[in-house]
Amino acid sequence: MKDDEPELIMLPGPTNVPQRVMNAMIKPIINHRGPKFREFYKELTENLKYVFQTRNDVFPLSCSGTGGVECAISNIVGKGDKVVVPVNGVFSERLSQTVEAFGGEAIKISIEWGDAVTPQQVKKVLEDGNVKAVAVVYNETSTGVTTRCLKEIGDICREYDCLYIVDAISIFGGDHLPVDEWGVDICIAGSQKCLMTPPGLAAISISEKAWKVIEKTKGSKFYFDLIKYRDFASKFETPYTPALPLFFALGEALKMIREEGLEARFKRHESCAKAFYNALEKMNLSLYAKKPVRSNVVIAINNPPRITDEQIRSKLLKEHKIVVAGGMGKLKGTMFRIGVMGTVNAYHVIRTILALEQTLKELNFEFKFGEGLHTAKETLAKEGLL
Amino acid sequence: MKDDEPELIMLPGPTNVPQRVMNAMIKPIINHRGPKFREFYKELTENLKYVFQTRNDVFPLSCSGTGGVECAISNIVGKGDKVVVPVNGVFSERLSQTVEAFGGEAIKISIEWGDAVTPQQVKKVLEDGNVKAVAVVYNETSTGVTTRCLKEIGDICREYDCLYIVDAISIFGGDHLPVDEWGVDICIAGSQKCLMTPPGLAAISISEKAWKVIEKTKGSKFYFDLIKYRDFASKFETPYTPALPLFFALGEALKMIREEGLEARFKRHESCAKAFYNALEKMNLSLYAKKPVRSNVVIAINNPPRITDEQIRSKLLKEHKIVVAGGMGKLKGTMFRIGVMGTVNAYHVIRTILALEQTLKELNFEFKFGEGLHTAKETLAKEGLL
Repeated sequence: MKDDEPELIMLPGPTNVPQRVMNAMIKPIINHRGPKFREFYKELTENLKYVFQTRNDVFPLSCSGTGGVECAISNIVGKGDKVVVPVNGVFSERLSQTVEAFGGEAIKISIEWGDAVTPQQVKKVLEDGNVKAVAVVYNETSTGVTTRCLKEIGDICREYDCLYIVDAISIFGGDHLPVDEWGVDICIAGSQKCLMTPPGLAAISISEKAWKVIEKTKGSKFYFDLIKYRDFASKFETPYTPALPLFFALGEALKMIREEGLEARFKRHESCAKAFYNALEKMNLSLYAKKPVRSNVVIAINNPPRITDEQIRSKLLKEHKIVVAGGMGKLKGTMFRIGVMGTVNAYHVIRTILALEQTLKELNFEFKFGEGLHTAKETLAKEGLL
Repeated sequence: MKDDEPELIMLPGPTNVPQRVMNAMIKPIINHRGPKFREFYKELTENLKYVFQTRNDVFPLSCSGTGGVECAISNIVGKGDKVVVPVNGVFSERLSQTVEAFGGEAIKISIEWGDAVTPQQVKKVLEDGNVKAVAVVYNETSTGVTTRCLKEIGDICREYDCLYIVDAISIFGGDHLPVDEWGVDICIAGSQKCLMTPPGLAAISISEKAWKVIEKTKGSKFYFDLIKYRDFASKFETPYTPALPLFFALGEALKMIREEGLEARFKRHESCAKAFYNALEKMNLSLYAKKPVRSNVVIAINNPPRITDEQIRSKLLKEHKIVVAGGMGKLKGTMFRIGVMGTVNAYHVIRTILALEQTLKELNFEFKFGEGLHTAKETLAKEGLL
């Protein structure tokens, strides 16, 4: 691959950013307390609501996804408040730590990594009573697992009258998440994943039920104080200076998402993921996530015997200009991960599988060389992407 | 002024951003856990240390300035800890609120707005004992006041063995602030002011003395947990996904600052401010800040009799494409504010004064038309900027 060939970013975030979105960042600076900004902010939040599929309030936040999670937690958790968190990877672990950092009690449901919580498991914990919220990571970026029973958990939260928080950072805009229909009270999104925007922004939706809790909760917060965001949003402003270029980028990305349409977008992610999964299985590779909970946006592949992810990743980068991720936390050195996010299309899949087959062949992994590519191509054609 | 003439941003942040800095934002996305980022991060923090004039640890933070202040406070304030805060405007008030939001006790020294605290006032409060930190806003953006006795307050903090926190957000990179020499334990900077970078980043410096306190302090924090920033910085990474385009922009701006040199940069801000002040006084305008504490980076001008800042600002914008700010908090509707920040040069001063004279003439303000421009020109020539 030529040295000046641009890298193909197949990370589970940040992702490839369309030039249209990039260019939006270099718009001239405007006054964030002036009419131009207010007009822009109004459209931005309307388009965010479209992707959240909600009538709830939504706010863009100048911080990374982790800041968005802290915003959710610090606004609803007071000292000793109980929050149920199913833990099946690095990010759900982090979510439970955030609850505790703000004085809450995280009631963890420990799930085998690679699997996802069931509605029954959540219900069982709620029966013990006195739980303020259930907080679920929709897509565990560290394991490639999507919790597919979000709607059912939403029904249970309603039944037990507790708040329902969904950390959707790595999947938002790439898979189904009708916030209102599924009864999600607080949903958190990140810019640098399926929204194909550079990193640095989060977004959050807040239901009426959540506002009632927020108004009564005393906790440590200032930068993430949602009441202030609501006050300022009433005049289409942010309480503190917004990260303007990233706001502009997100605005442009949301326009592109509306142009494509949510359903088409989700389908494209699903089809690309299907092509990857079919090809990878054909190549004798073993996947970390259990089949029923496999993610359409992050694919976690166990290291093949006697080959390290470091070897694979470095050959992919140097010889094919493709960037994929390693494992996180306790999974470091055991797997590599491919993001299927944002702009992802048939050519990305083909180029990645092609390079991966070449790489594995050179590393003496035993598989039928060429079968992966063939399978990917067939699947993509069947899905209407080729 | 032609409709397509770009606006001249004379706000006290965000400011005009050089094209070189803008263009840095559209560099391709890279892996924030890869070698390219680590190399970049190393250079970025080295250049930040140059501007902080420190050997302390420094960290860029993906948030606005207010997030940077929260980072400082939430890492050193535990329940009931006393922090002395001189309050002389909106941002020092906000600083004291942040202390309280995180369970601390803010001991406010109330200063007349338009004036600044004296070392004696700080010393007097410290004599009562048991104070954990003194936190000072170096430049009150809301009033155009710079606290000129930072070094002396630093000496007092050392004498009473308490931490010294300086919120330098709106002045950092535009006026003298040798962090080590003045004994500042925690200093906070913002990207969108004198650093001529778009909004969305803060930066913070942490002394050895501050680390000892941070390590022992239990408070509510997660996104801003400095221990995590230190851990990850040891391998030239950030704990959470960084706002890459803004990091790239800041990196480029810091290179430009090194090229110009700190002393030349401070002098340029000072000379432009002097030209503004001389011209504005000649134009019979009244300044909000007392003369000895006038800021070189923000100029606050009281509304002339029977003229509103709204009238002035809207004419400046519509007829001259110049953006200036109004008042904040209780000063809203009483003044307008001009930023003298970042790229500011002789032509910015001349264009602004020219437009302001024209505007005030049309609004029937009584002054010797043309004297302002003449004075600005003379001052700039004497200062070597024309």
